[in-house]
Amino acid sequence: MSDVVTSLLHDNHTKIFLLVLDGLGGLPDPRSRQTELETAKTPTLDRWASEGATGLVDPVGRGITPGSGPAHLALFGYDPISENVGRGVLSALGAGLEMTSRDVAARINFATRDENGEIVDRRAGRIASEEGRRVAELLASGVKIDGVELTVRAEKEHRAVVVFRADGLGGDVSDTDPQVTGLPPLEVRPLTDDAGASRMAEVANEFIRQARGILKNEKEANEVLLRGFAGWDPPPSFRERFGLRAAAVAMYPMYRGLATLVGMRVFPEMPSIEAEFDALPEALADADFVYLHVKQTDSAGEDGDFGRKVSILETVDGLLPRVEEAGADLVIVTGDHSTPALMKSHSWHPVPILFRGGTTYRDETESFGETAARRGALGRFPSREIMPQALAAVGRLNRFGA
Amino acid sequence: MSDVVTSLLHDNHTKIFLLVLDGLGGLPDPRSRQTELETAKTPTLDRWASEGATGLVDPVGRGITPGSGPAHLALFGYDPISENVGRGVLSALGAGLEMTSRDVAARINFATRDENGEIVDRRAGRIASEEGRRVAELLASGVKIDGVELTVRAEKEHRAVVVFRADGLGGDVSDTDPQVTGLPPLEVRPLTDDAGASRMAEVANEFIRQARGILKNEKEANEVLLRGFAGWDPPPSFRERFGLRAAAVAMYPMYRGLATLVGMRVFPEMPSIEAEFDALPEALADADFVYLHVKQTDSAGEDGDFGRKVSILETVDGLLPRVEEAGADLVIVTGDHSTPALMKSHSWHPVPILFRGGTTYRDETESFGETAARRGALGRFPSREIMPQALAAVGRLNRFGA
Repeated sequence: MSDVVTSLLHDNHTKIFLLVLDGLGGLPDPRSRQTELETAKTPTLDRWASEGATGLVDPVGRGITPGSGPAHLALFGYDPISENVGRGVLSALGAGLEMTSRDVAARINFATRDENGEIVDRRAGRIASEEGRRVAELLASGVKIDGVELTVRAEKEHRAVVVFRADGLGGDVSDTDPQVTGLPPLEVRPLTDDAGASRMAEVANEFIRQARGILKNEKEANEVLLRGFAGWDPPPSFRERFGLRAAAVAMYPMYRGLATLVGMRVFPEMPSIEAEFDALPEALADADFVYLHVKQTDSAGEDGDFGRKVSILETVDGLLPRVEEAGADLVIVTGDHSTPALMKSHSWHPVPILFRGGTTYRDETESFGETAARRGALGRFPSREIMPQALAAVGRLNRFGA
Repeated sequence: MSDVVTSLLHDNHTKIFLLVLDGLGGLPDPRSRQTELETAKTPTLDRWASEGATGLVDPVGRGITPGSGPAHLALFGYDPISENVGRGVLSALGAGLEMTSRDVAARINFATRDENGEIVDRRAGRIASEEGRRVAELLASGVKIDGVELTVRAEKEHRAVVVFRADGLGGDVSDTDPQVTGLPPLEVRPLTDDAGASRMAEVANEFIRQARGILKNEKEANEVLLRGFAGWDPPPSFRERFGLRAAAVAMYPMYRGLATLVGMRVFPEMPSIEAEFDALPEALADADFVYLHVKQTDSAGEDGDFGRKVSILETVDGLLPRVEEAGADLVIVTGDHSTPALMKSHSWHPVPILFRGGTTYRDETESFGETAARRGALGRFPSREIMPQALAAVGRLNRFGA
C-alpha cells in the first residue's frame, strides 16, 4: 500500500504539523470516570476537535503494547512489524548514539556467572543504574580491539548498549544469552555466509573475552550477555516515501534518533516543552512536515501520576496558539501509544487522534478525549494509515486509477 | 480471502440487488453541517436504514481517492490494487469500445512539439473536446497498418484512446510520454522478451510515425503521446468467483464496460434514471445479482452543485418502491467513492452503505447518512468485503471448517 501512496504523490507546498504527546492515551479514573485527557482543561484541543475530526489509532495491532521505536515508525507511516529496526539500533538511538553504515549495535545485559562459567543471574541482580554506568565505563575504557572503534553506553539498571564501528562488519550474528540459568553463555556465531557476519562474530567474541577479564572481580556484573545485533539499515526515507521535507523537534535522544533514521532534519536538544514550541516557526519555514515530540506525558503516566499527566496536557494546550500562529495546513495531534497512569506503563489501548484542516471531514466531536473519539469521523485505524490520510487531506495525493 | 469465499458457495436461488449511486459520499455544508445525503429528503432510504443496517466503506484504502475503475472492481469483490485493470483498457471501456483477447489499448495525449521534435506542451494547450474529436477522426481514418485493425476514439479535451487489434500482440510495452517538456517523445519499447511485446512496439511506433505525418500541419495537436498500454486480461468472472449470474443496468459506457469485464450480462444504454429502474423486473427475473448504476450523483458533485446532488438523491429515492415491487432478498445501497460537492471532485472520504434483508443485523440507525452510518452495525470496512457479507446475508455461504 505504501508503494501505491508513493506513486500518487504530488507536491503542492502544503504543510503538515504532527504533535506527538508520548503515551497520550489513558484509562478513566474509577471515581470521575474520566481519563487524563478528559480531565485536563484543554480549550484549544477541544476547539480543534470541534473544527476537525477525531478518532482512535492502534499503534501496532489490537492488544499489542508497543515500545517507542515501532510506535513511532507506525506514526511516520512505516509498517512497525515488517519495517521494524533491529533492537541494537533502537537501543543505540535511545542512548543518544549516532550510527553510521560502518556500525553494528548490540544490547548488553550485565549478568552473574559462577566459577564454572555458568550463568546464575541473567540480570546481575538488577544492579542499580549507577552500578550499571560504572561497569559500562570500565568496558568503554578497557576493551581494545585492533581496527575497531568501540562505544559502550549504559541504559537503565543492568542494561547497556555497545556499538562496534569498523569496515566490513555485518549484523547477522547470534545472541549469547542462554535464556535460562545454569548454562554457560553461548558464543556469537555468524548466521549467514557473509564475510561481515564472520568478522562481527570474531570481534564480538573478543569483546566478551576481554570484558570477562575486566569484570572478573565484580560480585554481580561479572559477565556480559549480548543480543539484538543490528547494522544501520534505515528504511526508505520519509522524503522518498511521502515526498515531504521533514523536520523533528524533540527533547529526548531516542526520538531524535528515530527521526534521523527516516531522514528528518533534527533540531538540537531543547531545554523545555515551551522551547520546543518556540522552534516551530523556524521548523515550519523550510519543511513540509514538522514532527514535535512531548515526552513528559509518558513519564507522568509511567510514574502513575494522573494529576501530573493532566497538568502537562494543560501546559501543552496553553502553548497551542503558537501552532496556529506558525501556520500549517493540517494539524494532527496524537500519541505514539497509551500510558495510563493507572497502569504505570505503556499499554495496548488505542490512542486518541485529532485532524484539523485541509479536506478533513468536520464531525460533531466537541472535545478531544477517548470517549468522544470513539464516535469521531476518523474511526479507528492503524497508526501507519495516518500518513496517507494526512497527505490526502492536504491534497498531495493524485487519484488512483481512471 | 476470495478463494475461501469461492470454496464455501452454494446456490439457494436468492437474489441480491446492488444500487451504486456514483460519488455518493459527501462533506457537510458548513452552515447546515449536513452532507448532500443528509440534506436530501429520502423517506425510503431512511426506512430501509431503519429496517436494516448501515456503515461506511473505504473503496481502496484510507486516504486513497479512487477512479471509477478500481472503485467498481472493489464493489464487485475484486482487489482494486492487485486485480486492477490497465489504464488503456479502462479508457477503452470508458469510451464505449468493446475489447477482445486480440486487443491492446493505450491512452493518447495529443501534444505539441516544435521543429526540433521536442515536446513544448504535453497537453496540446488542452484543446477543446471538439478539436480532440476532429484530430482523433483524422487518425482513425488516416493511419493504415498491415494486418492491424485500429480504433481511435476521442475522450475529453486532449485525451483519446486507441485500440490495436491483431493476432499476437502483447501489452507489455513502455510509454512515450517524456513527462517533461523540452525533450523529444520516447520510443515504444518492449518490456519483456515476449514476441507480442516486440510486435506491439513495432506497431505502436509505426502508428506514431504515421500520426506525425497526418498531424504535421496542426498548430497544437501535432504529436501523440501513448501510455498505459494494456491487453484484455479480465479477472475471474463474477460467476466463477461468487457463483452468481449477474446483470448490469448502467447508462454510461465505462460502467457497462466494467460489468462486461467481470462477465455480467449488460443491459443496453438507458435514456434516464427512471428507465434504469424500469429494467429492474426483467433484470432480476433471470439473474441472481443485479447491479444498477446511477451516474448523475457524481456529475453533480463534480460540478460542485450541492443542491443538484440533493435533488438527484431525492429522485432516486422516489423510484425505490419499484425495487421493493421487483423483489430481492437483499438490497445494498452505496457508492463507488465520495464526490463531495464542496470539493468538486472524487475524494478519499469513506462512503455510506446500507444493507437491508436476509440475516442482516438490524441496528438502531433511523436514517441513511454519513453521520448515522458511523454508528451503524456494519462498521467501517473495505469495499471489496461487501460481496462476502452480501452472500452471507442471503445464506449463500457454507460454514468454513468443522
